[in-house]
Amino acid sequence: MKIGIPLETRPGETRVASTPDVVKKLAGKGLEVLVESGAGARAGYPDGDYEQAGAQLTDRAGAYDVDLLLKVRRPDSADVEAMRPDGIYLGLLESCGDDDLVPSMLAKGMRVLALERMPRTSRAQSMDVLSSQSNIGGYRATLEAAARYGRFFPMMMTSAGSAKPARVVVLGAGVAGLQAIATARRLGADVYAYDVRPETREQILSLGAKPIDLDLGESGAGEGGYAKELSEEAKARQQAALGDELAKAHVIVTTALIPCRPAPVLVTEAVVQRMRPGSVIVDLAAASGGNCPLTVADEIVERHGVTIVGLTNYPALVPADASAFYARNLLNLIEIMIASGESGPELKDLEADEITAAMLMRPAG
Amino acid sequence: MKIGIPLETRPGETRVASTPDVVKKLAGKGLEVLVESGAGARAGYPDGDYEQAGAQLTDRAGAYDVDLLLKVRRPDSADVEAMRPDGIYLGLLESCGDDDLVPSMLAKGMRVLALERMPRTSRAQSMDVLSSQSNIGGYRATLEAAARYGRFFPMMMTSAGSAKPARVVVLGAGVAGLQAIATARRLGADVYAYDVRPETREQILSLGAKPIDLDLGESGAGEGGYAKELSEEAKARQQAALGDELAKAHVIVTTALIPCRPAPVLVTEAVVQRMRPGSVIVDLAAASGGNCPLTVADEIVERHGVTIVGLTNYPALVPADASAFYARNLLNLIEIMIASGESGPELKDLEADEITAAMLMRPAG
Repeated sequence: MKIGIPLETRPGETRVASTPDVVKKLAGKGLEVLVESGAGARAGYPDGDYEQAGAQLTDRAGAYDVDLLLKVRRPDSADVEAMRPDGIYLGLLESCGDDDLVPSMLAKGMRVLALERMPRTSRAQSMDVLSSQSNIGGYRATLEAAARYGRFFPMMMTSAGSAKPARVVVLGAGVAGLQAIATARRLGADVYAYDVRPETREQILSLGAKPIDLDLGESGAGEGGYAKELSEEAKARQQAALGDELAKAHVIVTTALIPCRPAPVLVTEAVVQRMRPGSVIVDLAAASGGNCPLTVADEIVERHGVTIVGLTNYPALVPADASAFYARNLLNLIEIMIASGESGPELKDLEADEITAAMLMRPAG
Repeated sequence: MKIGIPLETRPGETRVASTPDVVKKLAGKGLEVLVESGAGARAGYPDGDYEQAGAQLTDRAGAYDVDLLLKVRRPDSADVEAMRPDGIYLGLLESCGDDDLVPSMLAKGMRVLALERMPRTSRAQSMDVLSSQSNIGGYRATLEAAARYGRFFPMMMTSAGSAKPARVVVLGAGVAGLQAIATARRLGADVYAYDVRPETREQILSLGAKPIDLDLGESGAGEGGYAKELSEEAKARQQAALGDELAKAHVIVTTALIPCRPAPVLVTEAVVQRMRPGSVIVDLAAASGGNCPLTVADEIVERHGVTIVGLTNYPALVPADASAFYARNLLNLIEIMIASGESGPELKDLEADEITAAMLMRPAG
């Protein structure tokens, strides 16, 4: 059974779907691992380390001509063409079913496992790349905020006087938001946090941040622990009530995402105008339209004296650890997909396990 | 008595020699403060705030045509031409007496106070810009290291496994080095530090870092708390003994500077070759030749898989707080320079106070 690890080709992508450490474990199970030459270079994993771990180096065609393809980013049509008709795709799709990517793979006869569809159960947690990558994203986004802010994050007492700690507001207390809170707290900032899901309050407090409480008249807790979209009325109430808290912030890290929906607007232009010049907004929802309407995806802009960071791929800025976590997530998943048979590893029935069954893409209708 | 605050024009400089807060205090002493329009803009201090603080906005010529000129960076010849012959220059000179800057100012009849010559006494501490700016530099340089490192600084325990903390080595435990240690510790890194001055050992320990002890056969403690240059023999012994510690590091922050001497080579090319790919060296001595011979001033380069950051002006990346500390240092200094006389503020005898006497530049020979 062949496993393929190609070079990721999306612009700015530096991660790789598997690392030498994990390849060694896969090879140890009797799997034949084919790594495209240079696949791990940008993440700090040289070809030689994969070879030493038991992988065979190959070209792009070789890495795609496999039984099980491990990918990070959404494939393009040339990638799909290079895939084997009886192969399995295992990776992110970055699709909400509104394009022909999945149909084109299914039409070939492939089986497609979408990492976005990982169930949010405790058994599946160790396989959840959305969670591991969001964690890294929240860390790195907060470093970006600190590096772009013209003042100290921590309180400083010096012989030339003291500097107050930065006032940081984190919007959205999911995995990315909680790690943003933790990182800003590590750096000594005064941190406030808001989430539409009331159950996050305890987690915010446990990280040493102050929860911002708003009365919206409804809860934003949705399925599987994700947030759901609020009514128009509640949205307006939320923006108004948040305004004063946000205008006082020196740094805002926004992480509010609703799967397959535009990101909610939480930081209005009126709020940006009220912020002190030199303040920073890092909008982790930039790829989904942004939590601030002034955010420009993949750009860093200045509006009303405020720096607004719209980078969309923070894990790619921490590629060694992001790839390591990603690879371990996939290893944990592969372990429930494969049994060791008489003549080597054998694929189990993907419909039989609730995790792989939930991830399997099926033809529409 | 007129005080001038011009726009700093060195490439990449964003700081300003005074802030609205401090201008208010200067104006309160009866001093006439002239601020060049736009001087504070890049540091987050708009013109209107200076006006409100009691300053008068002016053009470049107006900001230079003053009794007391407050500067951050070394002036160029056009700046010197714009200065008043009976005026006082108060700022950094960035000179070791090997150029005609100071002679040209003295030839005009000006008095020149060099901030580099601030005595390292406890009375002068609140006026010491080298110290306040090094503190900011150490903080910001460590953020740069964290942002460019492909892994987490803190230890991370996640459901996808754990990440070990980064191993950070700080070379030189002066003000910048101590703040680099503190910042790396805040971010959860495992920090080791080395300084040629044995008395720094306690400070390193008190910040939660591990001192690296080397036996060089001589001490590197020099005048005024600064390091002095070692003998060739001791330098070779130092490089060899440090090598093993440095090769194990994931991140090196080097801050070893000797006033008016080339920076000592502490991280040799052989050490860089031994470091793990993806490691980061931030060389705060880049402007003085670097503590690593591969460092390129004002550039970020990759050598042997290691990112080497040669930025030379970290305080300019934290311009609001860097300017605020700088301005307060100058305010503290101005307070010992000026007495309130019958008809307003009067300049005291600069030779009479040990601090201003030490700072006054005198003709050579």
